[in-house]
Amino acid sequence: MSTSEHSPRSGGASAHAVTEILAGQDDMKDWLHDLYRTFHRHPELSNQEVKTAERVATELKDLGYEVTEEIGTTGVVGVLANGDGPTVLMRADMDALPVKEDTGLDYASTDTATDADGNTVPVAHACGHDVHVASLLGAARLLAEAKDAWSGTFVALFQPAEEDATGAKEMVDDGLADLIPAPEVAFAQHVLAFPAGQVSPHAGPFLSSADSMRITVHGRGAHGSMPQLSVDPVVLASSIVLRLQTIVAREVAPDDFAVVTIGRISGGSKSNIIADRAVLELNVRTFDTAVSERVLAAIERIAIAEAQASDAPQEPEFELYDHYPLTENDEATTTRLTEAFTAHFGGQVTDRGRQSASEDFSDIPSALGVPYSYWGIGGVDPDTYAAAEKKGTVSADIPANHSPQFAPVLEPTLSTGTAAIVVAALAWFGGSGN
Amino acid sequence: MSTSEHSPRSGGASAHAVTEILAGQDDMKDWLHDLYRTFHRHPELSNQEVKTAERVATELKDLGYEVTEEIGTTGVVGVLANGDGPTVLMRADMDALPVKEDTGLDYASTDTATDADGNTVPVAHACGHDVHVASLLGAARLLAEAKDAWSGTFVALFQPAEEDATGAKEMVDDGLADLIPAPEVAFAQHVLAFPAGQVSPHAGPFLSSADSMRITVHGRGAHGSMPQLSVDPVVLASSIVLRLQTIVAREVAPDDFAVVTIGRISGGSKSNIIADRAVLELNVRTFDTAVSERVLAAIERIAIAEAQASDAPQEPEFELYDHYPLTENDEATTTRLTEAFTAHFGGQVTDRGRQSASEDFSDIPSALGVPYSYWGIGGVDPDTYAAAEKKGTVSADIPANHSPQFAPVLEPTLSTGTAAIVVAALAWFGGSGN
Amino acid sequence: MSTSEHSPRSGGASAHAVTEILAGQDDMKDWLHDLYRTFHRHPELSNQEVKTAERVATELKDLGYEVTEEIGTTGVVGVLANGDGPTVLMRADMDALPVKEDTGLDYASTDTATDADGNTVPVAHACGHDVHVASLLGAARLLAEAKDAWSGTFVALFQPAEEDATGAKEMVDDGLADLIPAPEVAFAQHVLAFPAGQVSPHAGPFLSSADSMRITVHGRGAHGSMPQLSVDPVVLASSIVLRLQTIVAREVAPDDFAVVTIGRISGGSKSNIIADRAVLELNVRTFDTAVSERVLAAIERIAIAEAQASDAPQEPEFELYDHYPLTENDEATTTRLTEAFTAHFGGQVTDRGRQSASEDFSDIPSALGVPYSYWGIGGVDPDTYAAAEKKGTVSADIPANHSPQFAPVLEPTLSTGTAAIVVAALAWFGGSGN
Amino acid sequence: MSTSEHSPRSGGASAHAVTEILAGQDDMKDWLHDLYRTFHRHPELSNQEVKTAERVATELKDLGYEVTEEIGTTGVVGVLANGDGPTVLMRADMDALPVKEDTGLDYASTDTATDADGNTVPVAHACGHDVHVASLLGAARLLAEAKDAWSGTFVALFQPAEEDATGAKEMVDDGLADLIPAPEVAFAQHVLAFPAGQVSPHAGPFLSSADSMRITVHGRGAHGSMPQLSVDPVVLASSIVLRLQTIVAREVAPDDFAVVTIGRISGGSKSNIIADRAVLELNVRTFDTAVSERVLAAIERIAIAEAQASDAPQEPEFELYDHYPLTENDEATTTRLTEAFTAHFGGQVTDRGRQSASEDFSDIPSALGVPYSYWGIGGVDPDTYAAAEKKGTVSADIPANHSPQFAPVLEPTLSTGTAAIVVAALAWFGGSGN
Repeated sequence: MSTSEHSPRSGGASAHAVTEILAGQDDMKDWLHDLYRTFHRHPELSNQEVKTAERVATELKDLGYEVTEEIGTTGVVGVLANGDGPTVLMRADMDALPVKEDTGLDYASTDTATDADGNTVPVAHACGHDVHVASLLGAARLLAEAKDAWSGTFVALFQPAEEDATGAKEMVDDGLADLIPAPEVAFAQHVLAFPAGQVSPHAGPFLSSADSMRITVHGRGAHGSMPQLSVDPVVLASSIVLRLQTIVAREVAPDDFAVVTIGRISGGSKSNIIADRAVLELNVRTFDTAVSERVLAAIERIAIAEAQASDAPQEPEFELYDHYPLTENDEATTTRLTEAFTAHFGGQVTDRGRQSASEDFSDIPSALGVPYSYWGIGGVDPDTYAAAEKKGTVSADIPANHSPQFAPVLEPTLSTGTAAIVVAALAWFGGSGN
Repeated sequence: MSTSEHSPRSGGASAHAVTEILAGQDDMKDWLHDLYRTFHRHPELSNQEVKTAERVATELKDLGYEVTEEIGTTGVVGVLANGDGPTVLMRADMDALPVKEDTGLDYASTDTATDADGNTVPVAHACGHDVHVASLLGAARLLAEAKDAWSGTFVALFQPAEEDATGAKEMVDDGLADLIPAPEVAFAQHVLAFPAGQVSPHAGPFLSSADSMRITVHGRGAHGSMPQLSVDPVVLASSIVLRLQTIVAREVAPDDFAVVTIGRISGGSKSNIIADRAVLELNVRTFDTAVSERVLAAIERIAIAEAQASDAPQEPEFELYDHYPLTENDEATTTRLTEAFTAHFGGQVTDRGRQSASEDFSDIPSALGVPYSYWGIGGVDPDTYAAAEKKGTVSADIPANHSPQFAPVLEPTLSTGTAAIVVAALAWFGGSGN
Repeated sequence: MSTSEHSPRSGGASAHAVTEILAGQDDMKDWLHDLYRTFHRHPELSNQEVKTAERVATELKDLGYEVTEEIGTTGVVGVLANGDGPTVLMRADMDALPVKEDTGLDYASTDTATDADGNTVPVAHACGHDVHVASLLGAARLLAEAKDAWSGTFVALFQPAEEDATGAKEMVDDGLADLIPAPEVAFAQHVLAFPAGQVSPHAGPFLSSADSMRITVHGRGAHGSMPQLSVDPVVLASSIVLRLQTIVAREVAPDDFAVVTIGRISGGSKSNIIADRAVLELNVRTFDTAVSERVLAAIERIAIAEAQASDAPQEPEFELYDHYPLTENDEATTTRLTEAFTAHFGGQVTDRGRQSASEDFSDIPSALGVPYSYWGIGGVDPDTYAAAEKKGTVSADIPANHSPQFAPVLEPTLSTGTAAIVVAALAWFGGSGN
Repeated sequence: MSTSEHSPRSGGASAHAVTEILAGQDDMKDWLHDLYRTFHRHPELSNQEVKTAERVATELKDLGYEVTEEIGTTGVVGVLANGDGPTVLMRADMDALPVKEDTGLDYASTDTATDADGNTVPVAHACGHDVHVASLLGAARLLAEAKDAWSGTFVALFQPAEEDATGAKEMVDDGLADLIPAPEVAFAQHVLAFPAGQVSPHAGPFLSSADSMRITVHGRGAHGSMPQLSVDPVVLASSIVLRLQTIVAREVAPDDFAVVTIGRISGGSKSNIIADRAVLELNVRTFDTAVSERVLAAIERIAIAEAQASDAPQEPEFELYDHYPLTENDEATTTRLTEAFTAHFGGQVTDRGRQSASEDFSDIPSALGVPYSYWGIGGVDPDTYAAAEKKGTVSADIPANHSPQFAPVLEPTLSTGTAAIVVAALAWFGGSGN
């Protein structure tokens, strides 16, 4: 009887099926590592993931997936229909960052790209999306090579432009719902700076909402030797930066979560010219809309007042962009998932709580009307991490996502990332019962 | 006998000669204005003054000057030997600035160029060097067309790269002394934001010394949502900017002249990534070496301490560049010059005192061992200026040099700039006595 | 059978007993309000609670309590032994603050006192300890006047110097354990800025730990017209204040609770003298020792570095004082208490979560080795609060503790504060079974 | 014939008379030093110079002066009419500062006083007015004891409350003009941090104008643990302090003299209470009314804007006080004085230029309609000064006026201060011709 085998809670046949499927990991290790190193070496900026998407599509087709390309800009979906059973969607994001890699890896990126402003910038997978892409391709292969071990439909979705919060929405707007079978559940994962080998599911709010704001402040340009004729936009922008620190420190209740990061400041082009404007680009994260609103209002209030303090000829301009929704993991889905993870990974399953990062993944299940869960996987060499933990220097010594030094160890990161997808999918597919 | 006619102090024959020479101004007005508009429309960055230099050389040759090109990078010298008498050198600087012109002029620049860092930047003659080049060509033509009215040798020197303080030294290092007859005196002029038609000589210290410094501060990169893992270089750089304000406000004696301008701040590339460094480029001006030294030491002290306040993983790096010498006008030369100007321009001669700007011009006479004087000419429509003065809004309404709105009126700016050179030269040449 | 009646969990007879005891509230209302107004009108600073303690002792003696005075400095304990049963300790703190009252109340304080530094300062019950004292006297009277309704021993403890975190320890160090029967449980309460009538128990960490630090920064004095001869301590202290904002904003994880408040800044005595030092007094609150340590270390690092940025002749001095322990309510005790509150107050019981304030109360039960629970009571007119809540202006319109405008409404604040003590005590005493 | 002897320019008989008068210095040295030490040991705050004035009056009467007391508050004038000739007024200021002396002198002040706000404060002659008082009494004695050597009328004026800019005006308003013979010229002197023995006259603007401003900023008070309910006035005041640095650094032309010193900052009373206001007291000095106005306007603009940045419930309040006029030494008077000084002191006469300090002395000659000159005398041990100068550490090592370490050496400070008055007076009196 297959009933119990389809029940993810029993775990019996499913565990057997997982073992059977994952048995293929050894054979594909070189292929997987090569894939990863290639993605890592040639990162692509948001909505420019052309080569990455081509390679993804080629691999999926080779594996027998039905592939749709160029969803949104460069989105790819591979569908593997394998008999009766639920449809499970797994998403990986493909884009990289305008960061100059400083990892010292022999497969480090030295690539550059032209960004949206026409500037030539370095590019690196400083956020680890290459791990996501490789892991999902790995899981896609394992599932394709062990079709006897499960039944259902696996949807492998490769999304562009997560880093600017547009990719998920792009794919939805480009008709994703009509291009794939309706999934029963959707998943995504992210490599983070904790020990590789560990998997971290978490029910409820998991990733913060995020909003970016561009503030253009206006001064009055002059020769650098005549400050009295100018309104110095560098002094103005710097004053705003320092004053913005008081929002989290003084205006947000200490029990409320809020981050205000000014990721970019730019003003002037030469040491001896006082420019007539400067630009700040900042990012606000919270787990509560009321807090977001208070913080964004405080930012505007401070920037306007600081412009007045500088006697600026014009109010600052404010532009909101890159809105990320809250990622709130479905309780029931996450419980089922956690049980499956625990059955397979044992003590390596650690709920590390909500994360301050943000994601646009949830735009996809929200649009499709399906529950979702998003989990973390570790990417740091466990011994290195343990040593840093012992010394109390984790923050100082372990480069986090978006750092130029961020460099996940290949293993057990990739095998864990691959296995986690298979385990999650099988918790819904169940084993085939043979 | 020509003795008295060679005496600049008598002014008699000289005044007659000046009048004779300047009589040519009317005929050449269209040519001069076209030249100016061409230079204005197609500005070139420091050491890239290729087309400007070609046009200058062509014009000088057409006028009968003996021309040497590519001194330093793009320096040009034209020599007109016209019988016995002193050799007078007049210098014009040719380079423009990486500024986006915002003058609304129909001959405004829309050109861009690749700067030293490989970035594409807008370029504009926001400092008015086009006035200097056109005026010197104008004077060169007037002198060439009225050779009977004077005798001596006129050296018209067109210098590259004044804006980064390298051009004068380049020409000296490239053997300038051997390429021209030894001058008895050297002159330069600058268009400034006072009423066009006026000329401003000043004896003694006239332009400040200047030093630029690049400070690279090091933080620790992280995802924007995890500030606790980062050392935020934008906060660090902004703290330095505010703290540097205290140097002039608190550490320099109120009677001492000092300017600290942070012309450029740049850190990070995206709102949600905390970068691992930021850059400040600043400029220090004084009229006293001891003050310069105190200010530069204070800047380093503050930047180092602020990095410690941020718990930065590394001390800031400091790079000095663009050193400008003090411009100190020779007393006797300036007295003689001022008398000649007064004889010609009358009440339009106004000593506006020392200027906070800096120049590398003095590197040339210093290397040649000759006295020099550097004067200012006005570039603002006199009525506009008078109206702003009446309202007390000169600072607010009259764009100064290096402002994107800086736009000298064609006349009487160019005719005054041209005449000033002729008057100055004739104060040494004397009239020909006929 | 009395078993069930002694069981606080059943609530039956206990509820009856509570009702019986609280029936006395009407008769004592005038007395209670007079007491409260007297305490409010004549507040006393920490360790100067002489008149308050005298009045407390007199009242307790009148009620038949066995009274011990001058424990620590001015601590008072009244013990009412009333037959078999548990010993329950309730604590009220007596001291007021150096705040100039600005409530407009007809019983507002206009008193002044000499503070520890010898300065004459205004004094006010801006923290509401007068509510605590009056409520405990009220409950002491109710229990004394209805001895038939309960049995056990009630310990009414009036503590000095909560505001400087010394009073609880003083009483412990002065032999408190030997002066009272060993309690089974200890309670304390605080009036807060939520609707009067409500009671807010909370299990687990309830009040933060707190540490105060005094930073003395050293500059170099000079005449105000000669800043170049000085190191300006006002600029230095202000720079530290702004830089300290970055600790909570950038160095503490957004999920961690931390407050850094600089409550006092003081430097210089005249507008035209640059002083040679300035003083900051700040307060750090967290719910986690590791966070406290990180924050305190960051404060020292920043102050030392800012002194270097100012070229200060000497490092700042740091003095830690007023250490408050974490207040962590016992789970079982709080559950029992909450059930009793709910039985009596119904929907007026609202768990408002942990509070960022701090208390030294827990030093007493910790020293005595007994479990404790600390709850909040509301002090704001319910209609006023509801109106502000509707407008979304609670933060702006409702003065919080320590504000010069903080003014609890007499009722239902005092009757609730009194009743809460009786209900809590009866949850342990049980009713007398009649 | 006496004509030439009355001519200060010839200097002949006058020099002889000076020598004759100053011959008395040796005999009075102990008396003078005792006087000085007494004044130094018992300094008195502005308008509280009761004992100082009494001693001054007693000494003057003993010397045969006609004395008027209590002009303004504590002003004293002694008049010595000695035959025909001009009337010369010399003024000394008597008040001390709320500074805690830290000189280590055996005659250091340990006195305290109650200031205008009712606070007990330390008091010290940190500005050296004791030197002025002692020197003027010394000169008064020398002139009284050698009446044969000169003729004319000497007016010794001892003024209260220079430090708050009210004393000169007080004396004028209290009828000074009617209490003394109309002087022909008025003098004052100040001990400064240059080598003792030197005298420094200077024609033209000598001391800056000064204005003090009190800014009260309004926040919203709250408990230190609830910053979100507050508007933190300490953060607001500190932000204003840092922003005010930009006025001199960016808004005042580098060639213009301006000082903005925030001499006092005060906010809050306890580390864990967020106060509802803070106070800044600052001082502005310039040599130009237009600059003063721009600076004062910028201060208000910045404070108002920073209050908005903080979302303050109320605009700051501004109060101007302690206005000091410009001290502009009369050209002819100063020339005559300098010649007399040079004839007597030789190379010890050094024009050290204008000083950034301010004085209300000129209110007296301005009210009387007479020319005046104000000079400096040195107070630093010449060897100590020379050593510091050699090491380049004058600023760091030589405590300036208003520093707690300011301590003039007794000699040659007092004998020079005394002699300078005699020399100045004789330049007008001339010698007696015998």
